[in-house]
Amino acid sequence: MQFTISNKDKNSNARAGELTTEHGNIKTPIFMPVGTAGSVKAVHQRELKEDIQAQIILGNTYHLYLRPGLDVLQKAGGLHKFNGWEKPILTDSGGYQVYSLSGTRKIKEEGVTFKSHIDGSSHIFSPEGVMDIQRKIGADIIMAFDECTPYPCDYEYARKSMDMTHRWLDRCIQQFDTTEGHYGYEQSLFPIVQGSTYKDLRKRSAEEIASKDRAGNAIGGLSVGEPAEDMYEMTELVCDILPQDKPRYLMGVGTPANILECIALGVDMFDCVMPTRNARNGMLFTTEGIINIKNKKWEDDFSPIDPTLGTYVDTFYTKAYLRHLIHSKEILGAQIASIHNLTFYLWLVEQAREQITSGTFYEWKEKMVKKLMTRL
Amino acid sequence: MQFTISNKDKNSNARAGELTTEHGNIKTPIFMPVGTAGSVKAVHQRELKEDIQAQIILGNTYHLYLRPGLDVLQKAGGLHKFNGWEKPILTDSGGYQVYSLSGTRKIKEEGVTFKSHIDGSSHIFSPEGVMDIQRKIGADIIMAFDECTPYPCDYEYARKSMDMTHRWLDRCIQQFDTTEGHYGYEQSLFPIVQGSTYKDLRKRSAEEIASKDRAGNAIGGLSVGEPAEDMYEMTELVCDILPQDKPRYLMGVGTPANILECIALGVDMFDCVMPTRNARNGMLFTTEGIINIKNKKWEDDFSPIDPTLGTYVDTFYTKAYLRHLIHSKEILGAQIASIHNLTFYLWLVEQAREQITSGTFYEWKEKMVKKLMTRL
Ligand SMILES: [Zn+2]
Ligand SMILES: [Zn+2]
Repeated sequence: MQFTISNKDKNSNARAGELTTEHGNIKTPIFMPVGTAGSVKAVHQRELKEDIQAQIILGNTYHLYLRPGLDVLQKAGGLHKFNGWEKPILTDSGGYQVYSLSGTRKIKEEGVTFKSHIDGSSHIFSPEGVMDIQRKIGADIIMAFDECTPYPCDYEYARKSMDMTHRWLDRCIQQFDTTEGHYGYEQSLFPIVQGSTYKDLRKRSAEEIASKDRAGNAIGGLSVGEPAEDMYEMTELVCDILPQDKPRYLMGVGTPANILECIALGVDMFDCVMPTRNARNGMLFTTEGIINIKNKKWEDDFSPIDPTLGTYVDTFYTKAYLRHLIHSKEILGAQIASIHNLTFYLWLVEQAREQITSGTFYEWKEKMVKKLMTRL
Repeated sequence: MQFTISNKDKNSNARAGELTTEHGNIKTPIFMPVGTAGSVKAVHQRELKEDIQAQIILGNTYHLYLRPGLDVLQKAGGLHKFNGWEKPILTDSGGYQVYSLSGTRKIKEEGVTFKSHIDGSSHIFSPEGVMDIQRKIGADIIMAFDECTPYPCDYEYARKSMDMTHRWLDRCIQQFDTTEGHYGYEQSLFPIVQGSTYKDLRKRSAEEIASKDRAGNAIGGLSVGEPAEDMYEMTELVCDILPQDKPRYLMGVGTPANILECIALGVDMFDCVMPTRNARNGMLFTTEGIINIKNKKWEDDFSPIDPTLGTYVDTFYTKAYLRHLIHSKEILGAQIASIHNLTFYLWLVEQAREQITSGTFYEWKEKMVKKLMTRL
């Protein structure tokens, strides 16, 4: 995997670059749609490619491990072959989902024991095991097994957890570097910075992660309920320490405004369930601001959803029709809103890239953040 | 509206024809996908047109009347403008849904009072009112307000209900013929034959309906739980009485085998929720037979779903992937299976049409019915 930076913004730490994988190149900054169980919810692969123009999608190790399971994925020849998405895929480490199963999981030095939400069966995720699992899933970018601390988190817990995440990282690297992929193409491992909202911990963690000199680095444990200012402060601090010449991935972030602010801090990659989850509830992120399509005011608005984006759903369907579908809990409402929101997210990072390239990013970002937070 | 018959089968009563509406022509025999609330569930209008190649879809008066409501539909300029489906639309009379609301509806000579399943509000559907509603929805073909008797139904109830349906029909015709459409294009009214599974009632009802000489005629009250033999017997009896030169619409039917058998009896139009409803539960109708995609045997079957059909979903996605999506309750599973099943239904009636045209329908039908009922 290679990363080349083509432009740097003069008034911020934003950069435009390109990430090379054997499944194709990714222009950064980039947003990665979340495909939890091997499917970006309510979106066809064809729509993902042609309408949304996604360049890389996420898969969730926890979900894929439980269903369809590694046997099926291996027989298929990996996740790309299984779901037909031939462009790059990144898998998370499964940790985040497992920690959410509160009450049914136990975190120990060896790893995490948990019970399946599907059938209650017992499983263990260890750093080594999770490397093997992600090897079998076959993602292009695989994530280290970490503990994602909740917010708020007391200092002592955050420190001990971070130290364990660092020890787990060494085990991940050891396992990853002594094994090979199953499908003939390169996989890259990204380590993850933790440290909750404590500056000294974030600094230590970023230094530790930077020292591993991997193909890319991630920032985890943010966007878990802390104020946006804390998220920005931690991201800035960490970006200043992580290598300049490697892509930086801020996990689980966020709103359109969050993304623009963090691009300005030097982040290259984002993922979040917000565009698809909120879509299913009728919340649209548009080029003009935020729309709650359930509101009465859209009942007889027969204008297209967001013609600036130019996609089929944005030019063909009206706001009034989408409102009706969401109110009626029609599946098509989720489909339209999901395609719209994802198209908007991809449009936004593409716009950011163009602004960085033309040297106008910072001023544009300041204006856009205000516009995008407007409630229409 | 015009109906021309181009070919008649020599060994059965099957016929190939074409129905002309101001929203385009419909080649018969035809299957009409059900778009309950103005959306064929889990299917984009683009997919309906380009992949499934639907020629006409159904809307449900009960659902559309309650949501989005007639105000919004009128402001939009009718259902075609509201949902963007520019080809023909047929609306049912709302009766079928209202009768299903058992306990909350009362059937009287004047009409039916019922409570909304959404907010419990009280409403009345009368023959005149339902004509006005369907005028406002703006379907190309609108259905008479009838009582659809349940199965089994005692003779006296069936006879009295049928007589009321006939009196209601006169009121429908009176209202329809003294009003005009709201949107400048022609609407046609189809009366409905009732009479449960009683031959003498069906005969009387068919004669009554035939005597009205409308642009097309429908057969209701079948596919409500009676044995298939009874359905075929009643359909045959009624088709022999209904005018030869007008399209015949068998409401709510049915399985692929039902459809082929009833085409042989002289039916031209069909609708059913089965292809979409069963799709969402993982039941696929394919060119090779019936597949329950949830079965273990498809777990590692990486062959395309049904390549004979040639659509995106049938050639791109594998059985194993679809099985995974349906098991995981992923929305995309419903989308893929719905497009597949509807494409299959439209393929089936198109095949029937070609066989009728080439004079080979009967032999083909005999073979196909067996094949289509095979469980793979
Ligand atoms: Zn998020
Ligand atoms: Zn049916």
